[in-house]
Order: sequence, then C-alpha cells, then structure tokens
Amino acid sequence: MGGFRYATGTWVYGTVGDRYLLGGYRQGLDIVESVKRISEIEGISGVEMIYPADFAAGVENVGEILAISGLDCCSVGVDLTGDPAWKYGSYSSRDPGTRSRAVRLTKETLDAAASLGADGINVWPGEDGHDYPFQVDYRRSWEWFRECLTEVADHRPDMKVCLEYKPREPRARSLVSTACKAALICGETWRGNVGVTIDVGHALQAGESMAESVDLLARAGLLYHVHLNDNYRGWDDDMVVGSVHTVEFLELAHALIKAGYEGWLSIDVYPYREDPAAVVGESLKFMEGIFSLHDRIGAETIEASLEGEDPLSLLARVREAMLG
Amino acid sequence: MGGFRYATGTWVYGTVGDRYLLGGYRQGLDIVESVKRISEIEGISGVEMIYPADFAAGVENVGEILAISGLDCCSVGVDLTGDPAWKYGSYSSRDPGTRSRAVRLTKETLDAAASLGADGINVWPGEDGHDYPFQVDYRRSWEWFRECLTEVADHRPDMKVCLEYKPREPRARSLVSTACKAALICGETWRGNVGVTIDVGHALQAGESMAESVDLLARAGLLYHVHLNDNYRGWDDDMVVGSVHTVEFLELAHALIKAGYEGWLSIDVYPYREDPAAVVGESLKFMEGIFSLHDRIGAETIEASLEGEDPLSLLARVREAMLG
Amino acid sequence: MGGFRYATGTWVYGTVGDRYLLGGYRQGLDIVESVKRISEIEGISGVEMIYPADFAAGVENVGEILAISGLDCCSVGVDLTGDPAWKYGSYSSRDPGTRSRAVRLTKETLDAAASLGADGINVWPGEDGHDYPFQVDYRRSWEWFRECLTEVADHRPDMKVCLEYKPREPRARSLVSTACKAALICGETWRGNVGVTIDVGHALQAGESMAESVDLLARAGLLYHVHLNDNYRGWDDDMVVGSVHTVEFLELAHALIKAGYEGWLSIDVYPYREDPAAVVGESLKFMEGIFSLHDRIGAETIEASLEGEDPLSLLARVREAMLG
Amino acid sequence: MGGFRYATGTWVYGTVGDRYLLGGYRQGLDIVESVKRISEIEGISGVEMIYPADFAAGVENVGEILAISGLDCCSVGVDLTGDPAWKYGSYSSRDPGTRSRAVRLTKETLDAAASLGADGINVWPGEDGHDYPFQVDYRRSWEWFRECLTEVADHRPDMKVCLEYKPREPRARSLVSTACKAALICGETWRGNVGVTIDVGHALQAGESMAESVDLLARAGLLYHVHLNDNYRGWDDDMVVGSVHTVEFLELAHALIKAGYEGWLSIDVYPYREDPAAVVGESLKFMEGIFSLHDRIGAETIEASLEGEDPLSLLARVREAMLG
Repeated sequence: MGGFRYATGTWVYGTVGDRYLLGGYRQGLDIVESVKRISEIEGISGVEMIYPADFAAGVENVGEILAISGLDCCSVGVDLTGDPAWKYGSYSSRDPGTRSRAVRLTKETLDAAASLGADGINVWPGEDGHDYPFQVDYRRSWEWFRECLTEVADHRPDMKVCLEYKPREPRARSLVSTACKAALICGETWRGNVGVTIDVGHALQAGESMAESVDLLARAGLLYHVHLNDNYRGWDDDMVVGSVHTVEFLELAHALIKAGYEGWLSIDVYPYREDPAAVVGESLKFMEGIFSLHDRIGAETIEASLEGEDPLSLLARVREAMLG
Repeated sequence: MGGFRYATGTWVYGTVGDRYLLGGYRQGLDIVESVKRISEIEGISGVEMIYPADFAAGVENVGEILAISGLDCCSVGVDLTGDPAWKYGSYSSRDPGTRSRAVRLTKETLDAAASLGADGINVWPGEDGHDYPFQVDYRRSWEWFRECLTEVADHRPDMKVCLEYKPREPRARSLVSTACKAALICGETWRGNVGVTIDVGHALQAGESMAESVDLLARAGLLYHVHLNDNYRGWDDDMVVGSVHTVEFLELAHALIKAGYEGWLSIDVYPYREDPAAVVGESLKFMEGIFSLHDRIGAETIEASLEGEDPLSLLARVREAMLG
Repeated sequence: MGGFRYATGTWVYGTVGDRYLLGGYRQGLDIVESVKRISEIEGISGVEMIYPADFAAGVENVGEILAISGLDCCSVGVDLTGDPAWKYGSYSSRDPGTRSRAVRLTKETLDAAASLGADGINVWPGEDGHDYPFQVDYRRSWEWFRECLTEVADHRPDMKVCLEYKPREPRARSLVSTACKAALICGETWRGNVGVTIDVGHALQAGESMAESVDLLARAGLLYHVHLNDNYRGWDDDMVVGSVHTVEFLELAHALIKAGYEGWLSIDVYPYREDPAAVVGESLKFMEGIFSLHDRIGAETIEASLEGEDPLSLLARVREAMLG
Repeated sequence: MGGFRYATGTWVYGTVGDRYLLGGYRQGLDIVESVKRISEIEGISGVEMIYPADFAAGVENVGEILAISGLDCCSVGVDLTGDPAWKYGSYSSRDPGTRSRAVRLTKETLDAAASLGADGINVWPGEDGHDYPFQVDYRRSWEWFRECLTEVADHRPDMKVCLEYKPREPRARSLVSTACKAALICGETWRGNVGVTIDVGHALQAGESMAESVDLLARAGLLYHVHLNDNYRGWDDDMVVGSVHTVEFLELAHALIKAGYEGWLSIDVYPYREDPAAVVGESLKFMEGIFSLHDRIGAETIEASLEGEDPLSLLARVREAMLG
C-alpha cells in the first residue's frame, strides 16, 4: 500500500443541499456526532474541520471531541463562502474591511488548527472571482489577494497555509482557478509556508491531468494537501472516488508516491443522496485498491515505461492486472 | 419590436443560495411582496409561479395578489426539486408512491394554473436522472416518466404541459436532457397538450444552438414556453440575458418571430448577488434591444442571407447595425 | 464473454493526420495491405470499409481481398466528408445537385455493401451542420436531410442504413448531434431499415451516458451499429478503449448484453501516433476483459442492484472484482 | 480607435483542411500570392509568417516579397507541428536529438525574423504534451522544455520569444496549456526576452476570461503578442472575431488599452470554408468597431464602474451603445 493516512471533512455529515433544495437532502449532525461517525469509518484516522462552524463551543471543546474519537485533526479549513459577507470575495474584495475580516478569520483558523496539532490550514476562496464581464479589476483583485495571503502566512510561519484552487463555482470564474495560477500567487508571497491544496476533482474540472498537477506542484515544493473525489469532468460533482475514473487514479497514485508526499489524503466528497459513511468508505477502499494495484504493477515498471515512447504496453499491463 | 410579452418567476425574489451558502445570499420575500416588486419592473406583464410554495394561502389568495398587481399568471411550475422526497426522481422514481405523489402534485398545479387563467404549467424534473453509473435502469425510468407525463396531460387536456429540459444539475445527468430527448418523450405520450419549454441557457449548456432548437421544436408543434437567461456555456449560470452572448440572441429572436411564437418570454434568472429587479429589467431591455436590432436589419434580409452560402455578409450587417 | 464479433475500420491504416499535419503522422497503406494487417489482429473478424476510397479497383476486387483475408465486411461507410464538395453539407446541402450526388453515392455504397455480404452501411454526415450563427435554415436542413435519408433507405429495404451521430467536428455544430436527435430523424423517415450507429466516444463527447443511449436506442428498435473508442469527454479523441474510462464501459457492456445486441463491435480509433494494430488490439482486449468482468459479477447481480436505490454496493462489487 | 496595428498569418491562404479532409477545403497559394492577397485586405499592415515553410526560397526572397507588398513582418512562427518528427513533442521530447533539432529550427526562425525586421518570434509547441495517462514524465518534460526555451532565448537576447499557450489540440493535453502555466515556465527561464502570446480563442477554450489573462500577463510584463479569433468555448474553432462573443471582446479591448499594449493584433483564423480575405477583413472591422464602442463608452466610465460593486450599470451602458 501507499502507507497514506486518510481523513475526511466534517461537512460530509453537514446539511448537504443545493440551490434548489436549500433545506438540504439531509439534516446536518452536530460536531460531536459528526466526528463520532467519521471515526467509525474504517481506515479514517483524521478529520478536516471548518472554522468557525465546527468551533462554536470553543477550540478546547473540539480538542476533547477529537481526543475521544481518536482522530487527528488533519487540517482546518477557513470558511470563506458560508456567509453573504463574502459574496463579492474575501481576500480580493474591494472593501478593505471585508479583506481584513477575512484575514482575521484566517488567523483565528491558524491558531485553532495549531491548538489541535494540525500542521496547516486550508484556504479555499470560493467567492473570489467574478461572474460578469467588467465586474472586477483583475489586477487589483490579484494584488489584494496576494497581500492578504502574505499577511496570513506571516501570522504563523510554523503552520502551512494551503491554497485550494478551483476553476469555478460558486463564482462563474474563480480567481485561483488552476494549479499553475495557485502556484504563481503562492510564489508571489515569497513565503515558505504557502503552498497548494490539490482537490483532484477540481483538477479534472479544470481539464488538468491530476498526476501532472501533482508532479509540477511537488517539483515546486508546493504540494501541501490533497483532496480526493471524482467527477465527470467539467463540474465538481464530488462523487465517490473511482466511480468514474480508474487509470488516471493509478497515475495519480504513482505521482503521489514519486513525490514522496507525506501529507493526508482527505476524502472531500458531497454525499447529496447517499450515505456519507458509505461514500467516504468506498472512496477510501478504492484508493487502497489503487495503491495495491500500483504495488502489483510496480513503480519501476511504470518508470521504465515512461522512459520509452509507448504508452500502450503499460495500459496493457494495467488492464491485465485489473481485468485478468 | 417583437411584440412579445415578458414575465419573470417569483423565485427571483426567493432565498437565492447555493450549496456553500444554504442560508442564502439574500432572504426571500413573501409572495405578496415578491409579486409587488415584480409588477414594478418596467415591461413585465406576467409572473411565473411555483406550486406549492407560492400557494400556501390558497389559490384564491394568489389570484387576489395577481389582480392587485395587474400581472397575468404566465405559467405555474410544479416544484419537483424542493423536497428531499424527490431526491431519486419524481415521475421516474422506482417507488410507485413517489411517482403518484409527483403526478398528484402536478395535477394540483394544473388546477391552480387553470384557476389563475394561465394556459399551461411548467414541469422541470430536475431530480429525474442519475449521478452514478449503474444507478438507474434507464429504460424503466423512461417508461415511468412517460406514463406519469401522460397521466398528467390527461388530467387537463385544455391545459398545456410544458416539459423543460436541462442537461444536468442538480443530477449529474438529467433524464430529459436535450431538446430532442424532450421532443421524443413528449411525442411518446401521443397527447396534443404536451410540449417543450426551452430554457435557452439549458440549450447553451447542452451545446445546442438556441435558434436551431427553437426552429426544430416549432416545426414539431412543440414550442410551448420560453425561459431566457445567459451563461458561459457548460453550466446554467442563469445570468443577465445578453451579458455573454449577442449574435446568437439575435438569431434566437429571428427564430421566435419566424416560428410565430405567441407565448411568454419568461426571464428565468438567478440573482445570486445582484438586485433582482435590475437583473430582470436589464435582461428585458436587452431582448427589446435585440428585437429592435432585428427590425432594423429586417427579417427578409436575414431570410435572403439564409438562402445563400455566405454567413459573413450578414455578420457584417449585424456588426454595422451594432457597432456602426 | 459477450460472444460479440469485433471489427475495425480500414482507416486505421490510412494516412492519419490533423489540420496541422495534413501530410499525416504516417502514410496510409493500400487496401490490400490494410486488410491484411487488420486480419492479423487477434480477435478481429470483420472490417468496416469506406466507399468510394476502398473500392477504387472495383467491388469484386474488394471481395477477393476480403476472401483472402478471411475477414467479413461488417459495414461500409459512405464518405461524406472527404471531398470539398460536401463542405456545406451532403443530405442537407442547399444545393439540389449536391444532395442528389450524396444520395447517389450512398446508394452505390448500399450496393457495394450488399455485394460484400454486409447487412448495412454507415452514414456519418460530418459536414452537415453549421459553424456560424445565421449560416443555415435549420428547418429546411432537417427536411432535406430527412428526404435524402428516406430516399436512401428505399433504395435497399433489405439493407440497414445506420446513421451515426456526433455533436461536432468537423462542423462546429452537427445536424445529427445526439442519440435522440438521430432517433427523431430516423423515426421521421417511417422506414424500418433506418437506425442509429452509436459511436460511444461521440456519446461521451455529447455528455451522454453510453449505457443510457444504448438502452434507449435498443428500446426504440434503433440500435443498429456500435463504434468503440475512448476519450476525455468534450472531444472525439478516438483513443484506445479503456484508456480513460472503466466503470462506464462495464455499464455499456451490460446494456449491450441486455439489449440482445447481435451486431458488430467496430473499433473506431484514430492511431495518430501509436501503432494501429496495437491500438486496435488493446481496445479489443480491454472490451473482452470488461465482458469477462461482467461475467464474474453477473448480470443478475447488476439487475438486482438496479432494483434498489443504492449504487454504492455495486460499485464496491466492481472494485473488488477489479482491484481485489 | 485603439490605434492598434493589425496583421494576419500566411496560413489563412494555405491549404486548410482537417483530419477528414487532409487534401484541404481549398488549395494553398504560394507565398508570393498569399502575401499579395493579404496586403489587399483593408487595414492589414503586417503579416505573420511560418518558418521554414514560407522561407523555401530564402529569407532575402521573403524580404523582397514583403517589400513589394508594403507589409511589415509582425512575427515569424516556428513550425513545431507540421512534421511527424515532432509527434511526441519538440522541446519536451525524450529524444535529445529531437530537442536539439527543435532548438536549432527556432534559432533559425529568430535569425529569419530579425532579418525581416520583426521584433520577435512565435513559439507554439502544439505537439508538446500527451494523449494517454502514463505517456510522459511530466516533470522531465517540463525541465526539458524549460531548458530548450532558455537556450532559444539566449540565441538572440534582442528578440522576443513569444510562447503561445493552448489547452489542447493536436495533443489531448498540452504541456503549455494556460496563461499561468505559460507565465510560470517563462519565469523559470529567468530571461528578459521570453513572454507569452495570448491567442484569445485558446483563452476561451481554457475557460479563461480573455481580459483577465491579458491583465495578469501585462502585470507580469509578459504580454508579448496577441492572436485574435472567436469560438464557442471548449474548442479552438478559429472563427471570425465577434461571430460569437461581443461584450467580452469589449472587455478585452479595455484590457489591451489599459495594458498599454503596443504590439500587433494578429488575426489568427482558420477559414475552412469561407473566403480568407472576408474572414480576416470582417474580424478586423469587428475589432475596430469594438474599439470605437470603447471610445464612445469611455475608459473612465469603465474604470469608474470597476471601482464599485455593480456590473449591471455598465452592461446597460454597453447595451445602449450597441442596441440603442
């Protein structure tokens, strides 16, 4: 196996809805019950939390809940989408007050994450971007975003700030939309604790090769965190890992191993209609199956194949290992 | 101008949110206030309502509200997405009880619409479809859907049942996904009061030409209702009409006029962040501007151009009329 | 196994190029050599030919070549894209002369196919459609297309006319773009020998579920012919079957078996850079592996799963069978 | 007006075909005739050439042809797709010999461009990328590419090396796929004469906002060259500018003016079926119309609007200016 540690987010037991069913397909559980249920999913040893929603009763309270559950806190995500205050952006908002509130919230998230023993936080700036032509000054948006990101990083040089890119949704166009755009803005902070979260579903949505993005981020020292899910490309369906793609997940597994990635594999799914534990559990088992397939084929075999110009022999090898 | 009547939906003043902000970017208004505000948008003479949400106080109550507002009821949409009961589909649900509840709700919608003087209802079966491979038996889904649609049509042969297609969302794959799939299933009911609602944003999302779909539906006698909005293709952004596309809206205008369409143009936008009246009002003004552009160019000029093989002369004519 | 017969097209040994390399990545072989090489691919028992290109030396000559090779002629495709004469369409061309030449060529194709013992021909009208707004009169295009298709069908009521749909390429928008659009126009001919070729890569490109399209075409009695290849969705990459998708091909296999499909599985790939025999051979072996996986899981297991609402148990079963 | 200089490429008079019609929709003209015809398109004052194809009779010969035509050489593109030798990539090829041939060809292109008085060359590495999973070692591909790009830049520090990104085609996945990926690899050369060519159709194909990419490249000092065309997003249709989009081209115009861009606007269209001069001419007139619309609205009005949070007022202003 890959020896990877698996986590999932508390949101899988949240109120999961969509714009046509704001009341939710299912009512969310409280933090105690959510963490308990997550701890019961075989193979999961960490939990990714959301600040401030999961911290209503204080960070000590969360610490106790985690201690009882036996789960590690793998990361804490700062919520920059769940309040209408961010509707025109957080770090890139025109409004200085909004930007400073977003920065302050992120600093609190860093402190909370540190208290819980996590080595970093997740920053997904979903509302930063635009819907309409002529809606934002792209250059200033970039500058403001970069400034806030830098300030956040300086608050806790000992903690990783993991910037998660996504091409779109909820905005029609995201500011931090691709692996390389994320890498560029991280680089412009000139801080050593700012890197990238690759949500592989966002990579698919952006038309990227998941493995290539992992390779290139790792090469730049920016591969900080990984979110796993699957989709039909073109949209962030947040489905069970492996329900659509297979070969490319094997290629992803190879890239993660080659990169020496030692972080968490956090299963970031959105169980609209299915049972959250089943969705997370099946995703985890699929990944373990993929790593075991990788073992059977062998990293050397793959590397040797990459030396040559024929991709078909390896595809044949993969097929034999999967289908006999 | 085209002499078309414009409407919009009560949902533009509803609680508009998304999966990350279930609480909404803005709190919805009650039906009285929503209708009042819609009536104040210049050029709007009709309102598209939702059953049962808008009818909590009874259909007579809605009738009075409309009377006061001076608006016509252009259509009533049956809500087949706003309750978790429909999560695995309505007319195509495996569960006979669910199907019959969906049919019953639609019949009530027909009755309500008839009471209000509308000539039809809108059926958008957003939850009918699938997310995962191996999730549904496609053939049975189709049969069940067709049966329910037929039963609904027979409840009120004097009322139009307008089936709205959409390629995806909220399901990853919709059952009624394209203009021709909608036309096929309408045809299979063998009922003369079942036709299609074209939401032009759904047409763009499906990779269709808006004008072609209008032309083909009209040719089959199935062009029943029209929803207007705009997007970047690939997703149903429900943006201000004309904020992205121009020339294709002119082509759509030509198709509507050529089809002799006498129904409503219902502006179906989702004002996540912007003012609903501004979004609807600007959409309407854009369409009026497009019809006036069509007048200036002339239907005959366009028809003459379509006789030949050169699309560029007409594009030049359009450019001159728009940009001087 | 599925007991299916496999074929491939002579074009895999043709001059394969693209718009930037019109001279080709590889020079095409003559018909004798192409058929010989195809006959050497393990598991291939049929060949799909192109009229008129493959018939330069006469249909008897082709018959002899096939006899020597031991291959059956699975189908003959009429070439409606390889001549600039079709640049504005074939059956839907404004020009009556062009339409009648297209019909005549198709009739010749029917005769040639019949001579070779094939039970049908393939009609892929790649140039029928449009690029620009205001380029065609959609309704007349549809009528002309339907008329020509009907005339073609009447030439040989004993032969199947298989209409292949594709959303786009070479035109920006194809006339016959989706499974349901193809079904509609076939139905409008009111001829019993007109059906649909599903190229599963075109189905993916159109955002369709491959299995759903097979199910619905089979239900309508229109599942005439199958082309196999794979892609990243969104474009017709014509890649090795199974190089991108796995689970959905298993679902496709189930749909083909359930439909009682007895036609050919014709591997329609475009080996731009790789060895044609390797691309076809690997595709065939993948499909055989998929059918064997289907056997191991069992059609009854799948059908039983489709009765219920839980797609995850079957995904787990598939995963176990593939990854252990 | 914008005061921009317009050019187009010699390829508009080349043999324009596609993979189904390798012989071409139209036969290409020789360089003398191509340049002559381009010089006759009103408003065109420059020509973008291709090396080595256009230089068969020597660079002096080309110089004379240009002198006679009165056209400037706006750029010379090195042809890294028109020979099967590049089928697995040029600068990123595994084969050192292939890489060094690609570098040598580019150096010759630089020399040729310098001789003709152009200030730079265009490098579009269409074959660099991959089709299949497990086909390339992404990290080494990146390194090799960067090394070659650096070597090329050092050959002529006085000349601009303009790297053109494109998400895909002819490869299923390009190495240099987005504006930010191009910016990253340019930055990694640490050379002051390496920047980016934005083909706005490639930006649309990549899901980018054209204006945002221009803004961000300009901010980084990397906005070197501009190719203009239009498409339906999702594919590089290379259509007449303005045949699909309008408002976003106005936003692009604003971005170009704001950036102080002083380079050429090179109309890079692919006139498959239409007359090349008409396609180029109409594109140019559309852009001039857009710049004139920009003048009428006023850069200050746009800038003032960007200060606030309301994009609709400006859309209304644009509509009034276009549609009255």
